[in-house]
Amino acid sequence: MPDTTTAYQALEKKFARLSAISGAAAMLHWDSAAMMPPGGAEARSEQLATLSLLSHEILTSGEISDLLDGAEDDAAVLTNWQQANLREMRNRWCHATAVKPDLVEAQSRATSRCEMLWREARLNNDFASFAPSMEEVILLTRRIADAKSAAFSLAPYDSLLDEYEPGCTSDSIDRIFSDLEIFLPDFLAAVLERQKSDPPPVPPKGPFNQEMQKALGLEFMTSLGFDFNHGRLDISHHPFTGGIPDDVRLTTRYETEDFAQSLMGTLHETGHALYEQGLPREWRSQPVGAARGMALHESQSLLIEMQLSRSEDFLAFALPKIKAAFGGDGAAWDEENIRRLYQKVEPGFIRVDADEVTYPLHVMLRYRLEKALLAGDLAVKDLPAAWNSGMRNVLGITPPNDRLGCLQDIHWPSGAIGYFPTYTLGALAAAQIYRAAGQKIPDLATKVRAGRFEDLIAWLRENIHSLGSSLPTGDIMTSATGSPLETEAFKAHLRNRYLK
Amino acid sequence: MPDTTTAYQALEKKFARLSAISGAAAMLHWDSAAMMPPGGAEARSEQLATLSLLSHEILTSGEISDLLDGAEDDAAVLTNWQQANLREMRNRWCHATAVKPDLVEAQSRATSRCEMLWREARLNNDFASFAPSMEEVILLTRRIADAKSAAFSLAPYDSLLDEYEPGCTSDSIDRIFSDLEIFLPDFLAAVLERQKSDPPPVPPKGPFNQEMQKALGLEFMTSLGFDFNHGRLDISHHPFTGGIPDDVRLTTRYETEDFAQSLMGTLHETGHALYEQGLPREWRSQPVGAARGMALHESQSLLIEMQLSRSEDFLAFALPKIKAAFGGDGAAWDEENIRRLYQKVEPGFIRVDADEVTYPLHVMLRYRLEKALLAGDLAVKDLPAAWNSGMRNVLGITPPNDRLGCLQDIHWPSGAIGYFPTYTLGALAAAQIYRAAGQKIPDLATKVRAGRFEDLIAWLRENIHSLGSSLPTGDIMTSATGSPLETEAFKAHLRNRYLK
Repeated sequence: MPDTTTAYQALEKKFARLSAISGAAAMLHWDSAAMMPPGGAEARSEQLATLSLLSHEILTSGEISDLLDGAEDDAAVLTNWQQANLREMRNRWCHATAVKPDLVEAQSRATSRCEMLWREARLNNDFASFAPSMEEVILLTRRIADAKSAAFSLAPYDSLLDEYEPGCTSDSIDRIFSDLEIFLPDFLAAVLERQKSDPPPVPPKGPFNQEMQKALGLEFMTSLGFDFNHGRLDISHHPFTGGIPDDVRLTTRYETEDFAQSLMGTLHETGHALYEQGLPREWRSQPVGAARGMALHESQSLLIEMQLSRSEDFLAFALPKIKAAFGGDGAAWDEENIRRLYQKVEPGFIRVDADEVTYPLHVMLRYRLEKALLAGDLAVKDLPAAWNSGMRNVLGITPPNDRLGCLQDIHWPSGAIGYFPTYTLGALAAAQIYRAAGQKIPDLATKVRAGRFEDLIAWLRENIHSLGSSLPTGDIMTSATGSPLETEAFKAHLRNRYLK
Repeated sequence: MPDTTTAYQALEKKFARLSAISGAAAMLHWDSAAMMPPGGAEARSEQLATLSLLSHEILTSGEISDLLDGAEDDAAVLTNWQQANLREMRNRWCHATAVKPDLVEAQSRATSRCEMLWREARLNNDFASFAPSMEEVILLTRRIADAKSAAFSLAPYDSLLDEYEPGCTSDSIDRIFSDLEIFLPDFLAAVLERQKSDPPPVPPKGPFNQEMQKALGLEFMTSLGFDFNHGRLDISHHPFTGGIPDDVRLTTRYETEDFAQSLMGTLHETGHALYEQGLPREWRSQPVGAARGMALHESQSLLIEMQLSRSEDFLAFALPKIKAAFGGDGAAWDEENIRRLYQKVEPGFIRVDADEVTYPLHVMLRYRLEKALLAGDLAVKDLPAAWNSGMRNVLGITPPNDRLGCLQDIHWPSGAIGYFPTYTLGALAAAQIYRAAGQKIPDLATKVRAGRFEDLIAWLRENIHSLGSSLPTGDIMTSATGSPLETEAFKAHLRNRYLK
């Protein structure tokens, strides 16, 4: 190495290149969902596979390994951010090198096949035809978990979890989930009892013009500070936030008879997008500049959707605009009716449709089942029965078929074990962060009612977004809210919203 | 090398990877023009530069060099298509390795800067401020031409030409252009004289609804056989055909007061798109499966736009649809008026706005000037004077400023010397191919009047598109039309359309 370039500087160059490749892949992924004609799929999957392979080759090269060793030897001269960047680099390198290439490739082939079979199985409500492929994915995922477990000195499940929520362990999840398991059942029963005494909310009647729905979504995105110079809004079958921090591609879908689904979906994705747009500008090409993890990412979408947008204060601001857009009139457009509609709690079969009270129960069931699948304590063939009995236990309802049961999510077919808990960790974090913001920002409620979100967004930017991955999730939570992630704020929020 | 894989097979794998990378870059390039918000530009240029660098590294690796040598030693066992593929691989390798990396990088930096300065210079009509940067680009392009000249044993200009139109030499261009230089001036004078006696065509009055313009464009694209399962139509400032053969991204732009500009532009790009969609499916990831060169590519767009769409037969089919779309009524919508409008010949300053009679004169001027610039016979500072005197000579008009003169095209600032002649070679080829198609397809004129283009497209697919790069351009022309590229069909077409 020439002595004018340190190992650390050389690493920054390498990771900037990796960032450009993964950024290119992110744009192509968005295109696949939002723009691509069906006939482009085959070539696109070649493009994405090639970019992924190139990244993997660069990241696992002996050169990077030597540079990491060299930079770590000299870490004392680095700034805090550089040291954090180096830690993130090493973590990515560990994840990439822990698993042998042939296992990575086998898993990639198996999950592609399994996802395809899953789509058919879900359509035809046919778990049996898909079970052998899912069995294969679980088997390979277990081998990956074992390999990572050895490399990270973590329990197998925790080593998978680390990819989505670095530093998180199932011990800490167990503590949090045990608490919710005690709280939620009684709370849910109380809320259901309470809502029974209210008149049932009536959905406003459509059709709702799609252009108008889009205009409304754009208006709220603008109010919340989404930067359209660095992003756009389009349509895809499954709404998501894609692209890169400099060019965030947000998608939604429009239902003619229900404007709220798209609107709430757009607000949810806007929360993700604001996090991306608020990441530290000078570190964007480096690992330390990336979002901290899935739990904090979900916290930002749920803060905007659940904490903010379904609140009475937000409704006071938003409803007049919504009514004006659709010419809404009559009892269904009454503020109290709309509030009850947005805050309705009801056990259901589908996780993505769940309200914020029952959602954690869906997640905790999946968490328990995926740990059992990975450990080999639950066979894939026994999953439907375990699922249905779990649903009966936690929500008191039994899915009439696997389509509405264990076939509803793509996570397991795609090999994503360890992802589900982050949804609920995010919900807890959202409540905790929103409460802290409310304590720090004078008159937040009044500002929300007036559609003035600048202070809230600025606070989130300063305390969450701009930190990137410079600190562990727990430290970010503590510095922003005064304590690490806990259940207290979430429970207080639920009590306040649903039982007051 | 394991003996189960031949060198040739290993090369196919390498080039499939290169194809996936360049395909990814092509989609991102389309996105930059059609979708990307301005703030995404910086990150995008990093992504594209990284993909380009990766491609270059792969292509110039010692491994590819060894494989090429090995495969060429064993070429006798290969099929014709494989042999042609190997030739194309070698040609790409030669272009990539002929120039030292530091020169490639210097040129890339210089042209980026020069393009930026060119945009400002054109806006402000300020040649002087841009001349030094253009001087630098010419200097570097000359060094590249010298390096390629040595590698290919070609004249410097021809070695640049080879990248856009492989196998073409300035000798062959000189022969063709000399012929046109004799023919065109008198012919142009005769056409102008003839058109003077007609009443001047009146453009139909707008505004023309943009959604309707788009619907019309989509309708004609469909009639012509554009496959929307493998492509789409969007808007960009400069219309172009991008993407990949499996997913062709065509763009246009809409003028409220002039529907013909978008419509003809869309038809032109559809010609390019049909070529891409018709390339041999089984060779798409390989060099031999790519379009043959810029001349044939332009021939396909001009065949659809100029030969077909501006013909009286096409107008008989199209005009009723256009009138119905816009509710057109009155004298301006008369078929004879519209024909005169689409076939109007008039010397003008701007190449891209030129009719098919004066267009070659614009091109021949640029060809003469770019050869002189490259050879050092013309200094950049003397370009405006040379341009203006050239325009006086060939078209009898003097640009009032450099914006309407030598600052109008991006080609030279971006280092593309050797590109301009392909426009006119394409126009000649279009006439020659369309005449051959007319001789082979029974009742083509009747079919065109009825909007039945299947036979024409099928003939183009069989005789041009599906050949990819399996043969040199001259051989494709000879097998499709009975003779190599010549001026005769073009002159006959012009006489027939403009003096009959």
